[in-house]
Amino acid sequence: MDSTIGEQMYGWAKDLFPIPRSLTGDGVRDTLHYLQERIPQLEIHEVPSHTPAFDWSTPDEWNVDEAYIITPDGEKIADYHDHNLHLVGYSVPVEKTMSLETLQEHLHSIPEQPTAIPYVTSYYQRRWGFCLTHRQREALVPGEYRVVIRSRIEPGYMTYGDAVLPGRQRDEVLFSTYVCHPSMANNELSGPVIATALARWLHELDDRRLTYRFVFVPETIGAIYYISQHLEALRKHVIAGFQLTCCGDTRTYSMIHSRRGNTLADRVARHVMQRHTPEFETYSFLDRGSDERQFCSPGVDLPVVSIMRSKYREYPEYHTSLDDLSLISPRGLHESLQLYKRCLRILEKNHRPQACFPCEPQLGRRGLYPTLSTRNSGQTVRNIKNLLTYADGTRDLLEIAETIDVACVDLLETFETLLDNNLLQINEPA
Amino acid sequence: MDSTIGEQMYGWAKDLFPIPRSLTGDGVRDTLHYLQERIPQLEIHEVPSHTPAFDWSTPDEWNVDEAYIITPDGEKIADYHDHNLHLVGYSVPVEKTMSLETLQEHLHSIPEQPTAIPYVTSYYQRRWGFCLTHRQREALVPGEYRVVIRSRIEPGYMTYGDAVLPGRQRDEVLFSTYVCHPSMANNELSGPVIATALARWLHELDDRRLTYRFVFVPETIGAIYYISQHLEALRKHVIAGFQLTCCGDTRTYSMIHSRRGNTLADRVARHVMQRHTPEFETYSFLDRGSDERQFCSPGVDLPVVSIMRSKYREYPEYHTSLDDLSLISPRGLHESLQLYKRCLRILEKNHRPQACFPCEPQLGRRGLYPTLSTRNSGQTVRNIKNLLTYADGTRDLLEIAETIDVACVDLLETFETLLDNNLLQINEPA
Amino acid sequence: MDSTIGEQMYGWAKDLFPIPRSLTGDGVRDTLHYLQERIPQLEIHEVPSHTPAFDWSTPDEWNVDEAYIITPDGEKIADYHDHNLHLVGYSVPVEKTMSLETLQEHLHSIPEQPTAIPYVTSYYQRRWGFCLTHRQREALVPGEYRVVIRSRIEPGYMTYGDAVLPGRQRDEVLFSTYVCHPSMANNELSGPVIATALARWLHELDDRRLTYRFVFVPETIGAIYYISQHLEALRKHVIAGFQLTCCGDTRTYSMIHSRRGNTLADRVARHVMQRHTPEFETYSFLDRGSDERQFCSPGVDLPVVSIMRSKYREYPEYHTSLDDLSLISPRGLHESLQLYKRCLRILEKNHRPQACFPCEPQLGRRGLYPTLSTRNSGQTVRNIKNLLTYADGTRDLLEIAETIDVACVDLLETFETLLDNNLLQINEPA
Repeated sequence: MDSTIGEQMYGWAKDLFPIPRSLTGDGVRDTLHYLQERIPQLEIHEVPSHTPAFDWSTPDEWNVDEAYIITPDGEKIADYHDHNLHLVGYSVPVEKTMSLETLQEHLHSIPEQPTAIPYVTSYYQRRWGFCLTHRQREALVPGEYRVVIRSRIEPGYMTYGDAVLPGRQRDEVLFSTYVCHPSMANNELSGPVIATALARWLHELDDRRLTYRFVFVPETIGAIYYISQHLEALRKHVIAGFQLTCCGDTRTYSMIHSRRGNTLADRVARHVMQRHTPEFETYSFLDRGSDERQFCSPGVDLPVVSIMRSKYREYPEYHTSLDDLSLISPRGLHESLQLYKRCLRILEKNHRPQACFPCEPQLGRRGLYPTLSTRNSGQTVRNIKNLLTYADGTRDLLEIAETIDVACVDLLETFETLLDNNLLQINEPA
Repeated sequence: MDSTIGEQMYGWAKDLFPIPRSLTGDGVRDTLHYLQERIPQLEIHEVPSHTPAFDWSTPDEWNVDEAYIITPDGEKIADYHDHNLHLVGYSVPVEKTMSLETLQEHLHSIPEQPTAIPYVTSYYQRRWGFCLTHRQREALVPGEYRVVIRSRIEPGYMTYGDAVLPGRQRDEVLFSTYVCHPSMANNELSGPVIATALARWLHELDDRRLTYRFVFVPETIGAIYYISQHLEALRKHVIAGFQLTCCGDTRTYSMIHSRRGNTLADRVARHVMQRHTPEFETYSFLDRGSDERQFCSPGVDLPVVSIMRSKYREYPEYHTSLDDLSLISPRGLHESLQLYKRCLRILEKNHRPQACFPCEPQLGRRGLYPTLSTRNSGQTVRNIKNLLTYADGTRDLLEIAETIDVACVDLLETFETLLDNNLLQINEPA
Repeated sequence: MDSTIGEQMYGWAKDLFPIPRSLTGDGVRDTLHYLQERIPQLEIHEVPSHTPAFDWSTPDEWNVDEAYIITPDGEKIADYHDHNLHLVGYSVPVEKTMSLETLQEHLHSIPEQPTAIPYVTSYYQRRWGFCLTHRQREALVPGEYRVVIRSRIEPGYMTYGDAVLPGRQRDEVLFSTYVCHPSMANNELSGPVIATALARWLHELDDRRLTYRFVFVPETIGAIYYISQHLEALRKHVIAGFQLTCCGDTRTYSMIHSRRGNTLADRVARHVMQRHTPEFETYSFLDRGSDERQFCSPGVDLPVVSIMRSKYREYPEYHTSLDDLSLISPRGLHESLQLYKRCLRILEKNHRPQACFPCEPQLGRRGLYPTLSTRNSGQTVRNIKNLLTYADGTRDLLEIAETIDVACVDLLETFETLLDNNLLQINEPA
């Protein structure tokens, strides 16, 4: 069953991989419609171009019909239909013949990675360009090259999606991921597919204390626009947030802290990783690079972290065609999903419990304590007693777990037992 | 004189050792009357059985007339009158003959410590049982055994004692120790005899700033009952408390912190131990096991720590007949007493002094400073100057001592000198 | 130009070196008049003897016409006119003949430093005495010695100077240094000459946000008197202060923290030293010894630190005639001046900036960001983005610099650029 979920997520990634995504355009729409079939709560929004959002405004919509280069030998290379990374994002339309020398000014490749097509965009400066492997580029011979880019940059819409799964409380957990990356797998299809699996899992829970918000946006401008529309509500309700990115491979785990560094999101993510993947790497907010740049910015200041495998910018395939479906795997996706689920299971129960009696309660008469006192008695009920001892109404379950040195997920059942026995109470509004 | 105190305490322990104590019964009464002869302020209280106390109620009273086993050879073994550890605490009355096989279900011994009689109780589940050395147990031959337990478990009283030595202030230092352990020496006769010595020493002081409360109770239920009767007063007045236990041997010192970990009690105990027995072992509250479990529980939350030698559960003789009078010594008791006295001397003077003048006062004209300034002058008056420098009304004497890196007891005289010279003042209510 | 400033400061030290200074007297006056010619804002104050100041009162004025010893051979030794360290400070007048044995009781030398004349004073106990090299002292032969001290200790004045350079704000930076040391160079002419250079530099700045106060006083009593006259204003306005002393040589830098240890003065000095002379030595306030004893005392409690080279009491020449002009140098003075200037440049701009927009601003359209996004883009604008990211109105520039791990002086230009682009704002009163 669990491996099924991994396979399922990997299948979604495979379906979504070829779709040509960018900040805007039909690739984003197709991606969101695909996800909507799997998350019924997902709403798709269309924002007209040039809509202001804080210091920004939404861009023109960009769509591409075809794009390629014809070599002096008549060969078609760098064909957008072969790989959508071949075209610099937001390239303007071009149909022109030019010398290799002139063409070179518009080519991008990576000498150190001769088989990789780099991922290059130029969203806010009108340009055109092609990306190709360095090997391919070096093989180009002098002569006349025909360049064809049939693209349209024109007023249209920026498309994004969001889904809210209400809980008993308005306190909210935010997941944000992005849908603007062309054909790359870890960065970024791992984020949307894990978001989708989490939304489906939460939807099926009998009872949710917290409200969950999933946001699928183009990076930067999408997040900025979304925040501009929901600033007060997000600031008021979000108790923890996660930027979902780069979580599909099977290398060492990593996490990036929020700007404040010790929010509830930081605490739960760090606790879960320390307990369940203790060899993980920690990055400070100085190493940020995804939409936590917006969510954690002054004036927004949400508690948003990322749990990742290979962090963006840190793995060799990053932002190239090498970040393909072979880099991610059902197991990688599934293991990351498990970590996120552990975080959510904790957040759902992360109350500040209070012991109902001064002094220790009499566990024995409730069947929670051995009745014969010997030298080793009490060892087995240590967790019960420690939880009761630190349940002073000032510490949440996470802090108690860390104080008594156990994994918080392992404490959840004890917590329920003590609630059921009226030995703990919760003073917060239900 | 000092060694006399050690001998005196050891003598009390010797007298008290054979008395058969338990949660209740005549052994507790006899013990408290013995202590009352040495602490005139000690009041003895009788609490009827089944009196409620928070989640608990006081138990039936238990007294034993005799208890033993007759072997198939007619030998009387495991005789309660030989050693009161032979009988499981709160054993119900029995007079029966049974096979060795049946008897074995009621026997307790420690294979790894073949010469030790273990200490076993069954306060809250009606049972009977005998404890014996493993060597003795292994020598038992098949056959019919006659078991005799002439005990009475019936409504009566739980007995405890307390003594309050009032000071000029209502701020209170609490000492708690227990009187429910049968014939064992370190855990627990060391606590009651050191408590007795401290009470006598405090009684003889000319002038006490603080009020001192000594509590002699059966463990757990005694402490819980006591707290239930004095909760508001304890919470209001206790500024530091000590659970007196396991302080009679001469092995490495140890301390167990309070639940909060940095109360005044923690600070004074840690300071005294760091300065005077720096090789001591520190235990967190997770290693608790005595009545600090009640005193520090949420809803009670008193600043209670223990200064110990060999901590309960950590020494091989713990809760066996090997914890006998050879384990404790006059020197061990005396050295522990000295540590506690140092804590009290500091607590008595632990004001937040305030310098009377802005800038340094002129020490020279008060004879507190050399009049000829040379390269080394000032070295000898460093303590005076440092105390004045940090006496800003926000730090207590303990914090100042730690800041200026001296033992606080060594600062008490300087503190008095500066008070007498009107260079320091105390702003607290007298 | 910069080396010129070092030479200029050294020249001032050379001019001031021979002047016979003490707590009071014409040497102090001559010194202050010399400084006044270089700091036009310097005001010179005369305080009558026996004026009370907190626990102290100002001393009689002391002036010396001549002082020497005539040996049995008729040789004049320990002549005050040769070196003013020969006479114990505040020596009473004497004209007497005595045996070597009697004379010895009034002589001071240092056996371990046989060529050094020690610096000895007796301000508050009427005495007389001579200081000489140990070599000289050992050469003294038995016989009759004539001692001549033509000094006057009589009601007069204590002289000190101060200069205030007003800024746009009343928030004030305090510099204090002393003018009571006879012919010694590092301790103490380095302080007054660097104070003079700083005052001149600040005077020439176009625009000062902060107010600067320079205080030139005799040590201890001068500082105490000054504080007694300005206590409320100093407490209200001083945001950072520096005791200028021992900053003229070229040995390892050191700093002494304020009593509180983490004031703005501590933070800026520590930051500048960590970034620019990372091998510096740190002393806690327990190692204090200059007028920070008064400025940081309880009841005054100003944020005053010292940035030094060889700290007083820690270098072999300290308080002897070996602390002469060869110990300090133009380079030593100049380098210390540079550190202090860095501190002031930071303090002038040390606002708590606030980002003007929620989310990141669009740097690209302001020419602050590359328009083509490639794998390495953003590296060059990291400082801009980090400053914006941490500009949440709660952190001052110093804290931001430490958080983002750059030297604060290197951030000042970026800070101005972002202010000019209306991307940062300052909420404090101008």
